[in-house]
Amino acid sequence: MQETLKDSKDFHNYSDKIIQQLSIDCVVFGFHQNQLKVLLLKSKHINEWMLPGGFVLQNEDIEAAAHRILGIRTGIQDIYLELFSVFGSANRQFPEIHQAAMRACGYQPDPNHWICKRFVSIGYYALVDFSKVIPTADEFSAICDWFDINKIPDLCFDHAHIFQKALEKLRQNLDVKLVGFNLLPPTFTMGELQNLYETFLGKKLSRTNFQRKMLSLEVLERVEKKFSGGAHKAPYLYRFDEQKGEAFLEKKHF
Amino acid sequence: MQETLKDSKDFHNYSDKIIQQLSIDCVVFGFHQNQLKVLLLKSKHINEWMLPGGFVLQNEDIEAAAHRILGIRTGIQDIYLELFSVFGSANRQFPEIHQAAMRACGYQPDPNHWICKRFVSIGYYALVDFSKVIPTADEFSAICDWFDINKIPDLCFDHAHIFQKALEKLRQNLDVKLVGFNLLPPTFTMGELQNLYETFLGKKLSRTNFQRKMLSLEVLERVEKKFSGGAHKAPYLYRFDEQKGEAFLEKKHF
Repeated sequence: MQETLKDSKDFHNYSDKIIQQLSIDCVVFGFHQNQLKVLLLKSKHINEWMLPGGFVLQNEDIEAAAHRILGIRTGIQDIYLELFSVFGSANRQFPEIHQAAMRACGYQPDPNHWICKRFVSIGYYALVDFSKVIPTADEFSAICDWFDINKIPDLCFDHAHIFQKALEKLRQNLDVKLVGFNLLPPTFTMGELQNLYETFLGKKLSRTNFQRKMLSLEVLERVEKKFSGGAHKAPYLYRFDEQKGEAFLEKKHF
Repeated sequence: MQETLKDSKDFHNYSDKIIQQLSIDCVVFGFHQNQLKVLLLKSKHINEWMLPGGFVLQNEDIEAAAHRILGIRTGIQDIYLELFSVFGSANRQFPEIHQAAMRACGYQPDPNHWICKRFVSIGYYALVDFSKVIPTADEFSAICDWFDINKIPDLCFDHAHIFQKALEKLRQNLDVKLVGFNLLPPTFTMGELQNLYETFLGKKLSRTNFQRKMLSLEVLERVEKKFSGGAHKAPYLYRFDEQKGEAFLEKKHF
């Protein structure tokens, strides 16, 4: 709901262009070498961290809105976003925060302003390799940066709740939708795969059980070892078989 | 979006009470003895079948709105509803249908009426034993009844699409969330469980594979056979172990 921070010309006219009382919030997870991070913005006008968010234009699909918001706010383009939940409590409104933002922007704070109403927010999450994207603050944000998921600052609005729900969904979808494989290199060891799962789940896993479960999904292909001439110490390499992965998602257990 | 069909007094004042451009649609699946049905309404004013739907009041949680809508429209109370998707295409508006409804109600058709705008709709689905609930048409509906999922009539708005998406999600959640077990009696045979899966998935499954997969979930407990004195022909009975089910949902594969 960064739209508190638009410039004065747009601020008052904006209500005609958007769907009232509906917002979008994006939880972008970044993974690289066993580190899991989340993308946060710091407002230029109030001293608060938040998720990238915004509104849906009248002539815009909700998915397109999510991509536009993310592109504008963070400089991140063309990533896969997935709708994971809707936040629709009747008391989901934040007049104090929005009035503080109005004051910081030089407006008279107005509790009856459209932005102080209740908003239903649609939550999207995404998963990217954080080494491959450069977060860029836009004109409404002072800072846009990655935070370790265990060291995030206090978040504005109900964004701590939205973040937690996204993390839960991401953890579920590791198995259900195999979302983790696109963050690994083309070939990887079982240990690297296990590291990824342990980072996402936030706990250590049994090596034997992990290997057995992973192989039972029938989506991995073991890559032929090259003859090294040395000791047989190198671990097996695997690759994710996309066709088998699709079959897994299509059929689930049957 | 049955609110087209409210009486004239409410019809014009309603816009102040609800969140504009946001609706809810409910896909209620009913299962009983290997039959899978969906609950549909026929409008009193236009010759169209549709899903039960409506709006969110300003002071109402979205889940509460879904329950209220379902209670009013169908007489079905206190069932578990799950948000499964959001339908948010920019072109999701149906001015012709709403104007036909206005005409049928004796109003001047008005393409600028709030109900003719674009609506973002939140989809909920539910699963019940259809022998245990009695669908009851409300004052806005001529008929409220169960339809076999393979024999549903043409649906109004984009409700055929919403129905298909709900069915896909239900099929996924058979395994992911074990949603089917609450529709079986406390003890059941592997054959009964397989029938349920086959009905939901709309295809025959291999008996051996099915049994192996089901047992591998580790959520079933085999009930001790009573000594019958006769031939050993009776199949094993199983019961769903709720604690193990919760552990399965909690941990997924790990």
